[in-house]
Amino acid sequence: MKFTFAAAALFLASASAFAPPAFVNKNVATAPSSALSMAFSSKIFETQEVQLGETKETIVKGGRDLFPLLPKAFEGIKQIGVIGWGSQAPAQAQNLKDSLNEVGADTKVVIGLREGSRSFEEARECGFSESDGTLGEMFDVIKNSDLVILLISDAAQAKLYKDIFAAMKPGATLGLSHGFLLGHLDSIGEKFPESMDVIAVCPKGMGPSVRRLYEQGKEVNGAGINSSFAIHQDVSGKATDLALGWGIAVGSPFMFETTLRSEYCSDIYGERGILLGAVHGIVESLYRRYQRMGMSPEEAFLNSSESITGNIVKIISTQGIKAVYDKLSDEDKKIFQTAYSASYKPAKEILQEIYDEVSSGNEIRTVIMHGERLDKYPVGKIDGTDTWKVGEKVRANRDDEKIPLNPFTAGVYVATMMAQIDVLLEEGHPYSEVVNESVIEAVDSLCPYMHYRGVAFMVDNCSFTAKTGSRKWAPRFDYILDQLAYTAVDNGVPIDNGLISEFENHKVHQAVEECCKLRPPVDISLFAETSTKEIVIE
Amino acid sequence: MKFTFAAAALFLASASAFAPPAFVNKNVATAPSSALSMAFSSKIFETQEVQLGETKETIVKGGRDLFPLLPKAFEGIKQIGVIGWGSQAPAQAQNLKDSLNEVGADTKVVIGLREGSRSFEEARECGFSESDGTLGEMFDVIKNSDLVILLISDAAQAKLYKDIFAAMKPGATLGLSHGFLLGHLDSIGEKFPESMDVIAVCPKGMGPSVRRLYEQGKEVNGAGINSSFAIHQDVSGKATDLALGWGIAVGSPFMFETTLRSEYCSDIYGERGILLGAVHGIVESLYRRYQRMGMSPEEAFLNSSESITGNIVKIISTQGIKAVYDKLSDEDKKIFQTAYSASYKPAKEILQEIYDEVSSGNEIRTVIMHGERLDKYPVGKIDGTDTWKVGEKVRANRDDEKIPLNPFTAGVYVATMMAQIDVLLEEGHPYSEVVNESVIEAVDSLCPYMHYRGVAFMVDNCSFTAKTGSRKWAPRFDYILDQLAYTAVDNGVPIDNGLISEFENHKVHQAVEECCKLRPPVDISLFAETSTKEIVIE
Repeated sequence: MKFTFAAAALFLASASAFAPPAFVNKNVATAPSSALSMAFSSKIFETQEVQLGETKETIVKGGRDLFPLLPKAFEGIKQIGVIGWGSQAPAQAQNLKDSLNEVGADTKVVIGLREGSRSFEEARECGFSESDGTLGEMFDVIKNSDLVILLISDAAQAKLYKDIFAAMKPGATLGLSHGFLLGHLDSIGEKFPESMDVIAVCPKGMGPSVRRLYEQGKEVNGAGINSSFAIHQDVSGKATDLALGWGIAVGSPFMFETTLRSEYCSDIYGERGILLGAVHGIVESLYRRYQRMGMSPEEAFLNSSESITGNIVKIISTQGIKAVYDKLSDEDKKIFQTAYSASYKPAKEILQEIYDEVSSGNEIRTVIMHGERLDKYPVGKIDGTDTWKVGEKVRANRDDEKIPLNPFTAGVYVATMMAQIDVLLEEGHPYSEVVNESVIEAVDSLCPYMHYRGVAFMVDNCSFTAKTGSRKWAPRFDYILDQLAYTAVDNGVPIDNGLISEFENHKVHQAVEECCKLRPPVDISLFAETSTKEIVIE
Repeated sequence: MKFTFAAAALFLASASAFAPPAFVNKNVATAPSSALSMAFSSKIFETQEVQLGETKETIVKGGRDLFPLLPKAFEGIKQIGVIGWGSQAPAQAQNLKDSLNEVGADTKVVIGLREGSRSFEEARECGFSESDGTLGEMFDVIKNSDLVILLISDAAQAKLYKDIFAAMKPGATLGLSHGFLLGHLDSIGEKFPESMDVIAVCPKGMGPSVRRLYEQGKEVNGAGINSSFAIHQDVSGKATDLALGWGIAVGSPFMFETTLRSEYCSDIYGERGILLGAVHGIVESLYRRYQRMGMSPEEAFLNSSESITGNIVKIISTQGIKAVYDKLSDEDKKIFQTAYSASYKPAKEILQEIYDEVSSGNEIRTVIMHGERLDKYPVGKIDGTDTWKVGEKVRANRDDEKIPLNPFTAGVYVATMMAQIDVLLEEGHPYSEVVNESVIEAVDSLCPYMHYRGVAFMVDNCSFTAKTGSRKWAPRFDYILDQLAYTAVDNGVPIDNGLISEFENHKVHQAVEECCKLRPPVDISLFAETSTKEIVIE
């Protein structure tokens, strides 16, 4: 009865479109709040409670000092098959291998790639090889693994999941780093085979950051990218410890629990928002505005794109969101307040639309349909426009010390970030997820790469799901800011003091601070080779 | 078993997202081709066959000389209830009343409005009144009507359809001017009650045009707006003649058959494309481009927006699409070819995405979800931006004779129109529908209003479904043209001679010409009062 079930699942996924307001999105959004009440426990790792905003959440702190516990967490896992070689796979495979080696665990990390893949060469360069049995054809690897970490693209997962499930050996665990496959299965009414454990460890940053910070973490204990984890099916009773072990082995400073559904909602939403789509749209709209006001293209770029990626996010990363505002002179504070007051609601309108599209299943259908058109309409590059050509010039002559903290730009950017946070909180997501998806991943993982190579480069080189989403939503942010926010400013609409006061007293500031305490303040150091391959945002 | 059915219907509506490519959209797109084979017949009106492109289609020509046949077509219809007072309702109600009066038919046209509606006053001004029983509360009117023409907004239809169905008397016919309600019923798994006739007459132009051209048609026989018609349920066996009578009575120069599903796909698609969304995005992108190339804002507006609405569409309206190209000098032809070559495929990429979103049901879900957010996020105006402020100035100093035929603008606009036509043809829609939804409605109904009051005014004042759609898609056309088309031009990508040759030899040119022959060439004359109320694009 696959068909009937498919239909029922799809109806649930789409119910928000037709149900009375009280029910809107609650089918999905209640998932995260049930995660909230799950004060999970571990037989191996020490949990701790942290106060984030008005809630207490259970987390596990990572760190290299916990590596000796890894053999116990990976008990019975003779082989981890890391499938794919996109962005997460090289990072996670190498981190897992290094961590397990360090404590002499007998778990082997093996890369599985499709026959003929050009990535074999790269995997070999990273120390995996056919001769020692750590590199092979993906289905061979899947067959022989006790933990299959599936890191192929969303589209490939949607296409191959049946064969993969069928190839896995009895008792093996399926590991994901993103909930997209669940979203897809939901919409076609399929399920994971009930007999297997299904877990997820989702680093809140792209692969190159996961690897780079892990390497830096060898000197600075605990440096890395935070991960959420989800226990979707736990047949063995060991799923939680395995997930925590996996998260610690890839170098997460801390791990917080979520559900797979909450993960894909917040993740797909986040990359369409402040992580990528919104920042792109904000930059384009401000770049035009500043030129209309008389700046040269170079000045306009410096005051929009550069100000965000090279100044504002650095402050947020080290001192929190409100520090951006606190740093401003009284005069600049007024400009910030004006921009914030005008931008918050228009930005939130688009963000709520994104959330509804994602949680209703529409957005996943859009991505899948887009994938089906790829033969006829390959995705073009966006980096050839005036904005990004000027950006190249500005980067070439960059003096990091002279990047301005433009108060108007800061007001627009911070308002959008706060609106993103508020939508997630209103939809019931826990603070740990909210802070990681809306703040930490933006300022510590994505923006540093954008600063290094440009926003357009990032859009052109991220995962298909992220790319199609940011190309879809960036122009919406651009237009609504131009049409509603900047016109309000130009028409002298007064500062909304209530909104500013809500910003100043927002509980998220404490939560960001708390999350920052849980990791050492390491600035990621970028190097050329990481930016030459596709960047996958998870 | 409403729930189960809902689910099944939704699955069907969304099947394109998951099915193998061969099936993509075919669930919906086969509907139009089945319409193609239906050479309908009428007991009252003379049908004729016309050759459009490679197909023969059956049509009925309208005209005032056919009014004497109306009493027969409306046999048994003592009362027509026209429900609502948006854009179509005032036009259709007045036209129906005038036509039926003219031949002394005993069918009464009665307006039904919700209690307390501010539109009562306007309806009275148009000659309807409570005292003579031609104006009343909507459910009272529905109860007593033999034909209920439902012209309330899409959102109101989605909200009230159950009460309306329940209120209708046995044997009464439901009349629609748009297939949206079927799209909504499809997605929630509801159906029209099987006992009633359900017909649609869909004028391919907005209400004010339907009224204005009808009035002009009193002097020029046959002037008016073409209508498609659909017979969704024909219990009585009289549905076709009633629909044709309705179409003739509102002043359609000709009527062609479609299905309700084909109608809503092409209609919702069309308004997101060249009718509104695309033209908005094209103008914004060209307005910026021309300024980057050194034009003043006023010149840039003149060469983009004004060139389209005040020159290009006038040529298309009277001489066809290819005439725009034929009029150009050899040098300008090269510029047109360059712009056309670069723009056709990017525009088609977005248009195919729109079609897939509409035919999969995604777009209707988006509109409904948007409606549910309205309390919190009322739709803002877009007309305050720089582009439209400059536009106001340009219009104030307009000299119609001096509006340029900019060959680059023409290339971009015509390429987008041709791409829209090609997507519809590939999806199986008949030429009559394609030409009306992609050419005639644009150049004869919408663009003249845009020329009169500006593109932004049109977006701000059209129906909710059209407005949300054009706000969603305009920025996508803007960005993709800027990112892919204009960069290709600037990088010297050569003219695609194959594409130009396809354009020159396209079968649609004959079909447009044939459709133009079926109506007298009347230019719509605009007058102030039509533009002060909401404009509903059907």
